[in-house]
Amino acid sequence: MMSGGGSLTHIGASGEAKMVDVGDKSDTERSAMAEGFVRMLPETLALIREGNAKKGDVIGTARLAGIMAAKKTADLIPLCHPLMLTKVGVDITEDASLPGLRVAATAKLTGKTGVEMEALTAVSVACLTIYDMAKAADKGMEIGGIRLIEKTGGKSGTYRLSGG
Amino acid sequence: MMSGGGSLTHIGASGEAKMVDVGDKSDTERSAMAEGFVRMLPETLALIREGNAKKGDVIGTARLAGIMAAKKTADLIPLCHPLMLTKVGVDITEDASLPGLRVAATAKLTGKTGVEMEALTAVSVACLTIYDMAKAADKGMEIGGIRLIEKTGGKSGTYRLSGG
Amino acid sequence: MMSGGGSLTHIGASGEAKMVDVGDKSDTERSAMAEGFVRMLPETLALIREGNAKKGDVIGTARLAGIMAAKKTADLIPLCHPLMLTKVGVDITEDASLPGLRVAATAKLTGKTGVEMEALTAVSVACLTIYDMAKAADKGMEIGGIRLIEKTGGKSGTYRLSGG
Amino acid sequence: MMSGGGSLTHIGASGEAKMVDVGDKSDTERSAMAEGFVRMLPETLALIREGNAKKGDVIGTARLAGIMAAKKTADLIPLCHPLMLTKVGVDITEDASLPGLRVAATAKLTGKTGVEMEALTAVSVACLTIYDMAKAADKGMEIGGIRLIEKTGGKSGTYRLSGG
Amino acid sequence: MMSGGGSLTHIGASGEAKMVDVGDKSDTERSAMAEGFVRMLPETLALIREGNAKKGDVIGTARLAGIMAAKKTADLIPLCHPLMLTKVGVDITEDASLPGLRVAATAKLTGKTGVEMEALTAVSVACLTIYDMAKAADKGMEIGGIRLIEKTGGKSGTYRLSGG
Amino acid sequence: MMSGGGSLTHIGASGEAKMVDVGDKSDTERSAMAEGFVRMLPETLALIREGNAKKGDVIGTARLAGIMAAKKTADLIPLCHPLMLTKVGVDITEDASLPGLRVAATAKLTGKTGVEMEALTAVSVACLTIYDMAKAADKGMEIGGIRLIEKTGGKSGTYRLSGG
Repeated sequence: MMSGGGSLTHIGASGEAKMVDVGDKSDTERSAMAEGFVRMLPETLALIREGNAKKGDVIGTARLAGIMAAKKTADLIPLCHPLMLTKVGVDITEDASLPGLRVAATAKLTGKTGVEMEALTAVSVACLTIYDMAKAADKGMEIGGIRLIEKTGGKSGTYRLSGG
Repeated sequence: MMSGGGSLTHIGASGEAKMVDVGDKSDTERSAMAEGFVRMLPETLALIREGNAKKGDVIGTARLAGIMAAKKTADLIPLCHPLMLTKVGVDITEDASLPGLRVAATAKLTGKTGVEMEALTAVSVACLTIYDMAKAADKGMEIGGIRLIEKTGGKSGTYRLSGG
Repeated sequence: MMSGGGSLTHIGASGEAKMVDVGDKSDTERSAMAEGFVRMLPETLALIREGNAKKGDVIGTARLAGIMAAKKTADLIPLCHPLMLTKVGVDITEDASLPGLRVAATAKLTGKTGVEMEALTAVSVACLTIYDMAKAADKGMEIGGIRLIEKTGGKSGTYRLSGG
Repeated sequence: MMSGGGSLTHIGASGEAKMVDVGDKSDTERSAMAEGFVRMLPETLALIREGNAKKGDVIGTARLAGIMAAKKTADLIPLCHPLMLTKVGVDITEDASLPGLRVAATAKLTGKTGVEMEALTAVSVACLTIYDMAKAADKGMEIGGIRLIEKTGGKSGTYRLSGG
Repeated sequence: MMSGGGSLTHIGASGEAKMVDVGDKSDTERSAMAEGFVRMLPETLALIREGNAKKGDVIGTARLAGIMAAKKTADLIPLCHPLMLTKVGVDITEDASLPGLRVAATAKLTGKTGVEMEALTAVSVACLTIYDMAKAADKGMEIGGIRLIEKTGGKSGTYRLSGG
Repeated sequence: MMSGGGSLTHIGASGEAKMVDVGDKSDTERSAMAEGFVRMLPETLALIREGNAKKGDVIGTARLAGIMAAKKTADLIPLCHPLMLTKVGVDITEDASLPGLRVAATAKLTGKTGVEMEALTAVSVACLTIYDMAKAADKGMEIGGIRLIEKTGGKSGTYRLSGG
């Protein structure tokens, strides 16, 4: 899991923030999968589930917000490169044991740099959207567990969260 | 803490997502404070700390990214109203017991609707930026604990996270 | 219906495009309602309806896209003023006689300038999204009938499309 | 013209909206041409023509707005892929028989997915801009006839609107 | 002219960047005027002038780009507040003595904070657009003289560039 | 230095603005370097230097704003193509002889069109951000000297500012 001993690639020799030069990296197929959750009161989960039973819009809205946010990643994260995503997918499932909703996102492209941030941004904004849509009923919800689960492609090869 | 028994204000009578009409709400002074954290390896925290000792840019970059993201909240969260924030502040502090960094954000405005989502978005994007800047050294970092701590102003008055 | 004999407010004395100064206009409650449609093959409408029967996502996605686009109006239309919308609503209904989908949007704010463009932009982008989501089945769809139906508030008072 | 019997590519197996994976599509040269119109009172058309005689700004502004909007397509249409357009062109011509203005747009790229939505978005936003710039004189204008005229490149080959 | 002896309002007590809290400032009418220029070869100016004689589009495009950029100021300048501009105007005039084009911009609003940055951003982006449109003929152009000429409204009252 | 005798590539045959078709250009490695400055009172420079001594945030904020703006170039400059930058770097140095700060930016990509505008946009927005952060102390600052220093790659080959 850990990749310690490394250094911080976004920090220049004298400490200033910089965008890494990826011009020499090769265009390879890359993918990343990330996850997260929104923990809420069981009553809140029930409200969402019932709304969902009708037209599915809390979950549908959060899924779209996550997909759209992945496309804005380079606009949100200062040192991210602009990318041409070939796919973004967001899945949201109920987990009564939280209780709450679990969000998973996948991002893919053929390009010079990885798509971890796109997958993580999709998860984060989907979670924020769930919070927004349910906050009138429950302000105590908590967003957490946002992690990279898997990453493929690129020079560093495949990464998989240990115990993930 | 809980505000159960409520209903989901962003869902229409027949279940479709909608933007709540805030036209009749009064312009009051409103604020919100949110928090979150990025948990990382102690070695990663040390790397950030040393970078910080030189020019402070991991933390400085994340702080700015959070402030700028708060201004984009209505662009990211589908049913959020556009707002004229009068202040956004982001504080990032080291917590060796995580180990990692703690992020707190405050948003303020005089307007018709609350700024919870702006504070939560600032925290989320600051955390994502920390991940981005340190991910070359540590892909196993986890973003969590994103919660609303306090909210003032508006018809529903002050909210404070119990035990927060 | 017509308001002929007027002049083009966005054109300066010597013909150059300009943003109208609304600084002296008063803050009044304003609303606008616009409509449009997407005409398609009956088979395409049936496909959307069946998808709709399952999770409603063609219509749900288009509705959200319309709402989000209304918030970007000043970014799309060069001489529009930035506005603080208090409400945007988008309704999409099936019309077998087209055959196709009808889109109606309402925008509201308390401000210095009207929200016609926000309502029309919401309709246009909802229609484009319907096209996008169904184009694999039917490239011959047509978007049309995009009109302002009603406008209230402001110095010029209420406008209603004659025969609309 | 019709491509019936197809299915809706943006809807997942269980009905939820998703971005299609284009990672396996090949990079080919692709183009799309779309059209639309704004129907208006003859007096409005005359006003635009006279303004045009001076500095051409109604038409010039709408043309630029259309070009700029094409570049924002992936930001507006939730499930569109980000694209690297190599060309966008917008032509606006007077049609006294409408009476009104006709808008045509062409978009091109070498990439994995088609540019129909870019061309249609350029047309739509150019039409909205014409409405915006002339609405002080004529609120009854109608935007219509927005259709894909031609599409080349990609696996599905060339499409041409029948009778278009 | 000078306002020396002041301090840097965007820097926090311990040196970190922050957005100034303007919540307690009153809503007053505010305006700002800025200017700048693009110096070029006389041949380049002649080319623009001739294009201008036909349809005026170098200047027309730069004017629109400046207006649209003013609306994006808070998105570009990290610590700027989002504002509801009531007017933006951009004037571009030929100056054979440079030789080149002079750009002047005015921004206005009724609000809690000044619009200097909006006027300066409009000037800067109009100048960049002139460069972009003429760079095929002349890469040696220089953008300069970007200054605040006048500012009215707000607690600090009127500012006028001395000798400006 | 001069490339006179050329024509304006963004203007169509009949004078209207257009985006140049770069579809036939080859994907080559391209880079551009631009520079500019902000001239200020010596006291203002001292204030920035002291802030810098603490946490470096005026310069750090301007550097990030420049990098982020480079990624928005196609959104700001109407006829610029969207690009996939592989690197953006911004350096800001003190120049007591101005007195003020000098900004230099480098942009790189492998693509069909040059990155001059990205480098110039990074410089311009970094300068605007310096102005914004120091304007409470000194409204008389001047932004100038914004020029392309060097450009490599593409059909036209290397350009170097003469005497630059």
